[in-house]
Amino acid sequence: TQQNPPASGTQALAVIPGDGIGPEVTAEALKVLEVASPVTFESTRYDLGAERYLATGEVLPDSVLAEIRGHDAILLGAVGGKPNDPNLPPGILERGLLLKLRFELDHYVNLRPSRLFPGSVSPLAEHVLERGDIDFVVVREGTEGPYTGNGGALRVGTPAEIATEVSVNTAYGVERVIRDAYARASKRDRKKLTLVHKTNVLTNAGALWWRLFQSIGAEHPDVTTDYIHVDAAMIFMATDPARFDVIVTDNLFGDIITDLAAAITGGIGLAASGNVNPDLTAPSMFEPVHGSAPDIAGQQKADPTAAILSGALLLDHLGHADAAAAIEAAVLADLSERAPDTSRRTSEVGDAIAARL
Amino acid sequence: TQQNPPASGTQALAVIPGDGIGPEVTAEALKVLEVASPVTFESTRYDLGAERYLATGEVLPDSVLAEIRGHDAILLGAVGGKPNDPNLPPGILERGLLLKLRFELDHYVNLRPSRLFPGSVSPLAEHVLERGDIDFVVVREGTEGPYTGNGGALRVGTPAEIATEVSVNTAYGVERVIRDAYARASKRDRKKLTLVHKTNVLTNAGALWWRLFQSIGAEHPDVTTDYIHVDAAMIFMATDPARFDVIVTDNLFGDIITDLAAAITGGIGLAASGNVNPDLTAPSMFEPVHGSAPDIAGQQKADPTAAILSGALLLDHLGHADAAAAIEAAVLADLSERAPDTSRRTSEVGDAIAARL
Ligand SMILES: CC(C)[C@H](C(=O)O)[C@@H](O)C(=O)O
Ligand SMILES: CC(C)[C@H](C(=O)O)[C@@H](O)C(=O)O
Repeated sequence: TQQNPPASGTQALAVIPGDGIGPEVTAEALKVLEVASPVTFESTRYDLGAERYLATGEVLPDSVLAEIRGHDAILLGAVGGKPNDPNLPPGILERGLLLKLRFELDHYVNLRPSRLFPGSVSPLAEHVLERGDIDFVVVREGTEGPYTGNGGALRVGTPAEIATEVSVNTAYGVERVIRDAYARASKRDRKKLTLVHKTNVLTNAGALWWRLFQSIGAEHPDVTTDYIHVDAAMIFMATDPARFDVIVTDNLFGDIITDLAAAITGGIGLAASGNVNPDLTAPSMFEPVHGSAPDIAGQQKADPTAAILSGALLLDHLGHADAAAAIEAAVLADLSERAPDTSRRTSEVGDAIAARL
Repeated sequence: TQQNPPASGTQALAVIPGDGIGPEVTAEALKVLEVASPVTFESTRYDLGAERYLATGEVLPDSVLAEIRGHDAILLGAVGGKPNDPNLPPGILERGLLLKLRFELDHYVNLRPSRLFPGSVSPLAEHVLERGDIDFVVVREGTEGPYTGNGGALRVGTPAEIATEVSVNTAYGVERVIRDAYARASKRDRKKLTLVHKTNVLTNAGALWWRLFQSIGAEHPDVTTDYIHVDAAMIFMATDPARFDVIVTDNLFGDIITDLAAAITGGIGLAASGNVNPDLTAPSMFEPVHGSAPDIAGQQKADPTAAILSGALLLDHLGHADAAAAIEAAVLADLSERAPDTSRRTSEVGDAIAARL
């Protein structure tokens, strides 16, 4: 679905395996990439995440960010420590590492495909599933909204405390992500784009999103458009997800919707994502939506499928749509033939998918 | 579940039937209230909503607000015009009427019970439903967060536009809603309270919510507590909703979660809500979660169950828990015995429920 010219020659890949199950799933993604990719990757591994922070106090040193910036793409496993670790306050890794990379590398398209693969178990009932195939992609804005870290707090810890979070929306930022979403919708079979927002309450940001959605839509008469409030979107996700083709939405709504989308399509064990800089001014980053799951780390219990599918998004982004499609087909075949009650080791899943390529 | 002293004598009820199906469902709610209530209601009808706005330009005149304020409770049907009516820009009724009432009357507890009634059809699969009964209540903050109308826009309509939305969170506002949620949790069987937020990204507001959740929790050793990020909450709603008992959350997260909660428990045709001022400094307002559904208005096709259940919340708030429980039991019986494929008229549903009382 990308129109980037195919990358050729050796590609420099920054690999951030991260914490918990991150290294295990990343190893399988690399294994599959190696077999599937028409280009050779030269990988450099960066140890970032909870472990490094707890050991050294470092989250993302400037020099490391500068090095990463010099690569062609980034593959990330998962970062995060034990839940409620008092030495790791919420936000340290999220704001300091994950969001910092998204913002610094201008990953304004946070791409999250959702598809109910054969063989995977949806929590939705048959009467919902039989309405049609679930196969949509969320284009989540990645550099604005309530994620900017604007806002602050006054009189912290007192009964007079006030804390604010500012959602920042610019014509610059909203226009480019809506353009990207129209372009993606226009290349798909159904050519349908749904804007999800809350224009009836968030009237300032809502008016901006709505106006650009309409005006850019005029340039895409081939694309059918649709608008729904974020609360109504929840209802449709649960009762008629087949209605969605491409969804474009703000950073926070996208965060919420894509977890629900992952859930209804069989869980975040399968959900891949790309933090994409479509202008190629910096490397894009690909990562499974799931977290580091420290409770099962190092036991070869994690499902590496989401990481492997993130590798497919990476190849697609580098202009190798065919190789990406081959990985997806291999995953699909693997999922269809997975015996429901077998538990394979993480590396066995990677081997099985690689063997199909 | 409320500890208010029972109201006695004639109660002044402000009725805002609203638009579309609003008047039809409100009529049934009043019909049932009349039969069930130990107190007599003296109702005054206020014509507010899209119709009045389109005819007169008025949304909520100050004099009308002052009159409404003098009542003991408010029953609202639904307001809203035709989708995308160019004469009714998004936000006019929402900000000018619904939210204005919530803010002016200090409805800081937006109460939304979710229960899978027997006979109603959930979009969730059997393997999810069999994990346990779905029966939880969301305590959504109603007077702060991104709903305050703070924020603004600069250079509107130009490529240099910037639009902001400010989520405002005060210790004053967060403390009172968390206290209310603990009190409600402590009166329930399971006594479990889950905070839903996004503390890892919205670190200013998140720290305030988290701190108060912890410190007030220390006063309620009987209540089990739990924290989940709003995105993870989506996953649990879809895959294990039985885990929830009471949820406390911010205004916007609550808006999103409660629509999903309504969807998984059989649709917004059944979802009731209360905009509660627990301090009784102003009348509380009760309304179904659904909208005005102009496409089926005036056809006696709307399901009045959500409006009727909102009437039960109203009685409960006025201290008549037994009468409220009687309405709920009547609704439950009606739902259990509803033939799946019959379509009864709106008034027939009201009659059937009233007849059981
Ligand atoms: C970990 C967190 C910062 C992140 C987000 O909120 O974007 C995650 O939930 C995601 O969806 O990638
Ligand atoms: C209509 C709108 C202002 C309202 C809200 O966002 O609160 C509605 O969605 C609700 O949940 O009551």
